[in-house]
Amino acid sequence: MTKTDIARRVYDNAWKLDPIVRSLLDTDFYKLLMLQMIWKLYPDVNATFSLINRTKSVRLADDIDEQELRDQLDFARTLRFTKKEMIWLAGNTFYGKKQIFAPEFLAWLADFQLPEYHLSRRDGQYELTFEGLWSHTTMWEIPALAIINELRSRSAMRGMGQFALDVLYARAKAKMWSKVELLRQHPELRISDFGTRRRHSFLWQRWCVEALKEGIGPSFSGTSNVLLAMDTDLEALGTNAHELPMVAAALAANDAELAEAPYKVLQDWNRLYGGNLLIVLPDAFGTAAFLKHAPDWVADWTGFRPDSAPPIEGGEKIIAWWKEKGRDPREKLLIFSDGLDVNTIIETYEHFKGRVRMSFGWGTNLTNDFVGCAPHPFRGLDPISVVCKVSDAGGRPAVKLSDNPQKATGEPAEVQRYLKFFGTEDFVELPVKV
Amino acid sequence: MTKTDIARRVYDNAWKLDPIVRSLLDTDFYKLLMLQMIWKLYPDVNATFSLINRTKSVRLADDIDEQELRDQLDFARTLRFTKKEMIWLAGNTFYGKKQIFAPEFLAWLADFQLPEYHLSRRDGQYELTFEGLWSHTTMWEIPALAIINELRSRSAMRGMGQFALDVLYARAKAKMWSKVELLRQHPELRISDFGTRRRHSFLWQRWCVEALKEGIGPSFSGTSNVLLAMDTDLEALGTNAHELPMVAAALAANDAELAEAPYKVLQDWNRLYGGNLLIVLPDAFGTAAFLKHAPDWVADWTGFRPDSAPPIEGGEKIIAWWKEKGRDPREKLLIFSDGLDVNTIIETYEHFKGRVRMSFGWGTNLTNDFVGCAPHPFRGLDPISVVCKVSDAGGRPAVKLSDNPQKATGEPAEVQRYLKFFGTEDFVELPVKV
Repeated sequence: MTKTDIARRVYDNAWKLDPIVRSLLDTDFYKLLMLQMIWKLYPDVNATFSLINRTKSVRLADDIDEQELRDQLDFARTLRFTKKEMIWLAGNTFYGKKQIFAPEFLAWLADFQLPEYHLSRRDGQYELTFEGLWSHTTMWEIPALAIINELRSRSAMRGMGQFALDVLYARAKAKMWSKVELLRQHPELRISDFGTRRRHSFLWQRWCVEALKEGIGPSFSGTSNVLLAMDTDLEALGTNAHELPMVAAALAANDAELAEAPYKVLQDWNRLYGGNLLIVLPDAFGTAAFLKHAPDWVADWTGFRPDSAPPIEGGEKIIAWWKEKGRDPREKLLIFSDGLDVNTIIETYEHFKGRVRMSFGWGTNLTNDFVGCAPHPFRGLDPISVVCKVSDAGGRPAVKLSDNPQKATGEPAEVQRYLKFFGTEDFVELPVKV
Repeated sequence: MTKTDIARRVYDNAWKLDPIVRSLLDTDFYKLLMLQMIWKLYPDVNATFSLINRTKSVRLADDIDEQELRDQLDFARTLRFTKKEMIWLAGNTFYGKKQIFAPEFLAWLADFQLPEYHLSRRDGQYELTFEGLWSHTTMWEIPALAIINELRSRSAMRGMGQFALDVLYARAKAKMWSKVELLRQHPELRISDFGTRRRHSFLWQRWCVEALKEGIGPSFSGTSNVLLAMDTDLEALGTNAHELPMVAAALAANDAELAEAPYKVLQDWNRLYGGNLLIVLPDAFGTAAFLKHAPDWVADWTGFRPDSAPPIEGGEKIIAWWKEKGRDPREKLLIFSDGLDVNTIIETYEHFKGRVRMSFGWGTNLTNDFVGCAPHPFRGLDPISVVCKVSDAGGRPAVKLSDNPQKATGEPAEVQRYLKFFGTEDFVELPVKV
C-alpha cells in the first residue's frame, strides 16, 4: 500500500499562503508589558517604527518578493487575540505576579489590531514603516522582524532539493544539540530564549525551545515568546526595551527633560511593575552617562540588562557602580542579551560566577544559526542584523546611541546632538554581526 | 484544521509487524553470483551457516526479544522473488555483462524460498543456524544479519522519546554528511556501499546511499545491496566471499585437495564469470600462504580484495607479489573492505595513489555509525561484530583463518589443523571492532 496521503499532497501543492505570524501572542513578552504602560501613560503619543537592515550587503528587496511580504503583513493584520489567549493573559502568573495586566487594559486589548504599514523599495532595501499611535505601532516590531527573517530563509531555501533540506536541518539540529551539551556542563547557568525576532522560522524556534527544555531542563528559565510560553508551559520573560527612553527623550521639551528622560521612564515602569521586573536597560544613550547621572533609587532595582557593551566590560562597570552605591552585587542580577552564543555565554558566566546573579537572553545564535549547515557552501542563511526601531515620536526624531556606535539609530544630526549631550565615554566600536 | 491523519495514526498503533527484510533482493549482490555457481557446481552439497557474535559483551538474547526475532525470520521465509525483480535480474547489465544469470538459474530462482532455521539461546546469546543444501542456506547470511542488527537497534531505541530520536537521527545525518565532505576532497576516490549486513536499519542504509549519491556523485560506484541498486539505478557490486574456499576446503578428501581448494574455487569462478568479476579474496587461510602457493594465472586476475590484514600492509604485500610475477600493479585493482571508515579510506588511498587502482567497500561505519549521536551518553547503538559463517560443509567442519586470528572461525581442533597446514606467516592480531 502506498503511504502517500493524497488529500495532504494536493493541499500542500495548492495552498495560497503559509502564514508566518499566526497569533498576536507570537511576540516578545516585553511588548505587552510596555504596551500596558504606553496605553496607560502615553495613550495619545504618536510613534513611527521603521525597519533598519544594518547588513547592507544583503539586499532584502532582491531576496524577498514584495507581494509575499505584503501578503504576510496583511495576514498579520487580520489577527486578533483569541478568547483562549485573553483568558491565559488574565489568568497566568507572570514573574510571580497574578493579574499583571489590568482588566481595563485587557478589555482594550481584545479589540487590538495591528495598524497599517507603508512599504516601498529603495536601493535594494525595503522601507517599511508603521505610523500612528505608539500604542499600536509598537506591536509591529516583533512580527515585522519575524516575517522579514522567515521570508528571507524561505527565499534562500527555495532552490534546495528535499535531500539538501534534510541535511540542512539535521546539521542545524546537531549544531544546536552540541551547544546544549556544552551548556549542560554548567547546570547553574540560567538561559532564556530571546530569539523570536531573528528566528529562522517559527517552527525552528519552537524546536530550539524544545531542545533547551529537553537538554538543560531547570537551567532553561523560559522564553520571551508569549505564544511559546503559553503552549509549552514555560515562563514568559522580558522587561522593557530602548523604545521607552527613546520616546521619552524625543518628547523632551528641553535639555533638563532630556537629561531626565532615561530615569523618568524607569519611574513610570516602577509605578506599574515591581520586583523581578525592575530591570534597568542602561545603554540607550550610553551606559557611562546613564550611571554617572543615575539617582540613588536606580541602585535599588533588581538588576541591569547591558545590551551593547562587551558583556564582561559592561558587567564590570555596573558591578563597580553598585559597589560605589553601597550595594552587594551578589544580590543583584545581570541579564546579558547582546549577540550571545554558547562560548560568550559560558565565558561571561565563568568570569562573573559567585560575584553577581546572572541570566542570559539568547537570541539570534539560538534561533537562527544555520552557518555551515547547508550541504554545500552557502551563505544565504547567515543571519543578518535587522531591527525595527522607533524613528520618530510626537513628531520629533527618535535616537538610540547605545555603547557601540555601530548600533546607533536616528537622523545623523539628531544623533550628533545626543552624542554631544550625553557624551561618548566608554563607547566601544564593534562590528554588529547579529 | 488539525493535521493528524487519523487512519495513519490508528494504523501505526495497531500494526502487527514492521518487517525488516521485505524482498529477497535485499541482500548482497555477491550472494547471487555465488548462488549461481553453487547451484551449478555444488547442487548436492550441504552447508550449515551459523550466527557468530564476536562482541561477547553484548548479550543479544537479552537485547532482542525471541518472538520478535522469530516473527522477522518467519516473515523473510514468506518472501519470493517478484516478477519485477526477476525481470530486472534478467534484463540488467552487471559489471558490463548482459545476462550474467543463466535462464535456467533464473527459472530455479523464481521458486526460491529461504529454508528453515534453528533458534535457541545459550549464555545470553542466540544460537541461530541454517542447515540444508548450500544452495539454500547461503541465502540466509545477509537477511539474518540485517534482521539481528536492526532488531538490536530497535530494542536500543525503544526507550527514547520523540525528541531524543529526532536528535539521534539529526546527529547521525550530520555525522554522515561530514564524512561525505571529507570524501569530496578526493574526487578520484571510488567508494561503494557494502553495509547491508551491518546496517542500523534498511531505511538508514537507504539514506546513507542517497547521501553518497548526492554528495560524491561519480565517486560513488554503487552498492552491494541488490534491492537498493535496482530501486536507485546504481551499480550492484560484489564478487565472492570466504564461503567458497571454506566449503571447498571442508570438502577436501586429503591434503593435496586441501592445498588446492583456494585455487580450485577461483577456477570454478572463472568458468562462470570473467573480466571485472575476477577479484581474488586471498585471506581465507592467510594471504601469505595463499600467495606463496598461488599458480601464475592468479596474477592475471583483475584484482584482490584483502579483507582482514591492515589495508596498507596487506596492499603492499599483494603489490609486491604482482611485481614478482611481472605484472604492473597500476593495471590492477585493490578492493578494500575490512572495517573501513573515512580516515582509513583516505589514508589508504593517499598511500597507494598512482601505484594501483583502488576501490573501497564501506560497510559498518557507513551504515551503522551512531556512536555519540544519542542526545545523552548511550552505548546501545554502537555496532557489534556479528557474522553468519558456514560452519559445516558436506558433514565436515568448515574453517576460516584470515590474516587476523581474531577473525578465525571454526571448531578449535580443526582451526589448529588448518593453522598447521597453511602456516601463520604475516598474521596480525588486531581487535575486531566491526
